Amino acid sequence: MKIQQVTDLVSIKRSIESGNDEQKTVVKEIIAKVRRFGDAALKELTEKLDGVCLSSFSVTEEEIADAYAQMDTRFVSIVREAAENIRTYHEKQLRPSWMTTQENGTIIGQKITPLDSVGVYVPGGTAAYPSSVLMNTIPALVAGVKRIVMVSPPNREGKLPAPVLVAAKEAGVHEIYKVGGAQAIAALAYGTETIHAVDKITGPGNIYVALAKREVFGDVDIDMIAGPSEIAILADDTARADEVAADLLSQAEHDPRACSILVTPSQALAEAVSIEVERQLKLLLRQDIAARSIADYGRIYVTSNMDEAIETINQLAPEHLEILTEKAFELLGKIRHAGAIFIGRYSTEPVGDYFAGPNHVLPTNGTARFSSPLNVDDFQKKSSVIFYSEKALMENGEKIAKFARVEGLEAHARAVEIRLKNIRETH
Amino acid sequence: MKIQQVTDLVSIKRSIESGNDEQKTVVKEIIAKVRRFGDAALKELTEKLDGVCLSSFSVTEEEIADAYAQMDTRFVSIVREAAENIRTYHEKQLRPSWMTTQENGTIIGQKITPLDSVGVYVPGGTAAYPSSVLMNTIPALVAGVKRIVMVSPPNREGKLPAPVLVAAKEAGVHEIYKVGGAQAIAALAYGTETIHAVDKITGPGNIYVALAKREVFGDVDIDMIAGPSEIAILADDTARADEVAADLLSQAEHDPRACSILVTPSQALAEAVSIEVERQLKLLLRQDIAARSIADYGRIYVTSNMDEAIETINQLAPEHLEILTEKAFELLGKIRHAGAIFIGRYSTEPVGDYFAGPNHVLPTNGTARFSSPLNVDDFQKKSSVIFYSEKALMENGEKIAKFARVEGLEAHARAVEIRLKNIRETH
Repeated sequence: MKIQQVTDLVSIKRSIESGNDEQKTVVKEIIAKVRRFGDAALKELTEKLDGVCLSSFSVTEEEIADAYAQMDTRFVSIVREAAENIRTYHEKQLRPSWMTTQENGTIIGQKITPLDSVGVYVPGGTAAYPSSVLMNTIPALVAGVKRIVMVSPPNREGKLPAPVLVAAKEAGVHEIYKVGGAQAIAALAYGTETIHAVDKITGPGNIYVALAKREVFGDVDIDMIAGPSEIAILADDTARADEVAADLLSQAEHDPRACSILVTPSQALAEAVSIEVERQLKLLLRQDIAARSIADYGRIYVTSNMDEAIETINQLAPEHLEILTEKAFELLGKIRHAGAIFIGRYSTEPVGDYFAGPNHVLPTNGTARFSSPLNVDDFQKKSSVIFYSEKALMENGEKIAKFARVEGLEAHARAVEIRLKNIRETH
Repeated sequence: MKIQQVTDLVSIKRSIESGNDEQKTVVKEIIAKVRRFGDAALKELTEKLDGVCLSSFSVTEEEIADAYAQMDTRFVSIVREAAENIRTYHEKQLRPSWMTTQENGTIIGQKITPLDSVGVYVPGGTAAYPSSVLMNTIPALVAGVKRIVMVSPPNREGKLPAPVLVAAKEAGVHEIYKVGGAQAIAALAYGTETIHAVDKITGPGNIYVALAKREVFGDVDIDMIAGPSEIAILADDTARADEVAADLLSQAEHDPRACSILVTPSQALAEAVSIEVERQLKLLLRQDIAARSIADYGRIYVTSNMDEAIETINQLAPEHLEILTEKAFELLGKIRHAGAIFIGRYSTEPVGDYFAGPNHVLPTNGTARFSSPLNVDDFQKKSSVIFYSEKALMENGEKIAKFARVEGLEAHARAVEIRLKNIRETH
């Protein structure tokens, strides 16, 4: 693994696949078809693209029972415990509506309400990610969303993976449909006979899913379109090279474009980690993916001191940050930008990916400068509440009318003044 | 104004101008030029597009003093009071970072931090909107953003409007530059010699500004691109027709595509308001705009009862909602979707546009179903914090490794197991 001095500009930025014109045209056609023909279009597209002809898209209670029967009970209980941890953590994020009152009768505040309905896309393909089901649906449930709809492409037998169904059931998802791709996004955005429209769509997907989400955005809300994943590890010479290397590799196995970075003032650690990475790489099942990721996007930066290392981390604004230093807690206040911060050697990233409770849907590609992990706020919205008493309007009405006139908005001024006149006439 | 029965589907949805290919090309060229040539490009584009050649883009202290000298002191004190109200309201939205602890040593929480820097676009042209300056900048200041940069196109004398400068100074903006259009957005996103890059850009603008914001999104964050404004008024026969009509018109004067809707179970009120709108329309300065808006997007819906009226409001999800009914507070709990809710006859919309404290940047075009008024959260981000003790990892490590293996992520499992092994070897 390459070791280098830290330069002025260190970035994890990788280009995000934005789709070509042909893909965009395909997506637009699929959306138009689903809007026009509803379920019939879904059926046709599922047959064409997923290679299976379904009489119904709804996942039945029987299919869910089958899924449980397929999983070992130990895994089910782990999923249940993870779901409980995720629920507990996200419940702490709940905020009440609030108001303030003034003696002149004014009341102002914020009314906080859940979205009515949310759709969650779960990718198909070879790997099934039950953790992704938990992480995308539980915050919405905690937020108070009354209708959570999961969609995922069926395999050639017309089934969804058992771990995904078990996770959906444990989370408390309300409806599950076997439909994927751009057609699933269109159904969620505009509704069909079977799948009613939702207000927001979250969850990862392939390029067609991403383009479809971008296309329906505005008619419904969407979550951020994520780039490849990354980890940055801030470590000093108290860190163990074997553990640091294992963590870098756990990121690298995700994707050839995943990015794993060690930032350390310790040349000795840098060298030891570099050797360990090469050694452990050979033990991995997904060795090819991890090796490409490490070669292309893996870096070890040696800094002249800890402050420079911290500044490098803030510049990276990594999705995942591990602090593996002697006094890790002391550095927390200096970290300005990171999606999730793992403190100390026992807090290895997989702890957060699956189990501890915080969300694993995190801002990637440096967007932690301005974005947050998926959270309860993403499934609620605020309404401002304003109540003025007669007294409050009498006190402030003329100032408001004056302000409106400076902006050239005469009718705004008049809306206030007609009330002042009516009040004066009544008294 | 047209009166009609409420139909099954009532919508305020209007198409949002998305720009043509020529405009998109122009914007891309401007951005490329600013990225390449920095200040020199800004200078050239400002001369070409705004018709003024500037030696410096920075607004000087002298220019701000001149602006104060031009404004009457009463207006300055109104701006100051409005700024104070807006500040107080937004300060109530501040949330602390938090954590929870467990007996096994686990600590999890959320670290909440402000964005480093924010750019605010203020449109030029004939009308100057000091209220827009206050509403866009104060939430960022309250959030703790250390660097707030305002940009606005200069007039042909190379100046910005006095009310805008006064509002910026009262709000506490850190830097002000005389540059507008797509070139200002490019400067904020990528930086020039004079204007350093920011992390997020907010504020309204023309189609070139909107397209530029869309183009730089991802490299920096942007706020939602707003559609035309709207108001819905929920009223019964206790409401005064002259006041309802004045409020509908105050919305209509903004824009020919603004939308003003009355929803009421009272046929008598509907008829009286219809007549009042026509009468008051003739008194307005911006009569042409308001008349077109009322003709094209003004509606009075008569419902069979109050519940149906409320359901119609929720379907509309209006930007502004006024509740002008006998027991207005009793209905608040039934309103699920609205940007800002004005309760009772003394809480006319301009109260919130300028003065009461809540933000006037609100979700338009039905997006209140899933979006919120501009608020402090928009200028902060959260980082998850995870600390596992040795004991916590020993308790949960094997479960986490099992979960990772079900997902086929071997290196994730190994990152946990290498620690379990190291712990066992130490003891």
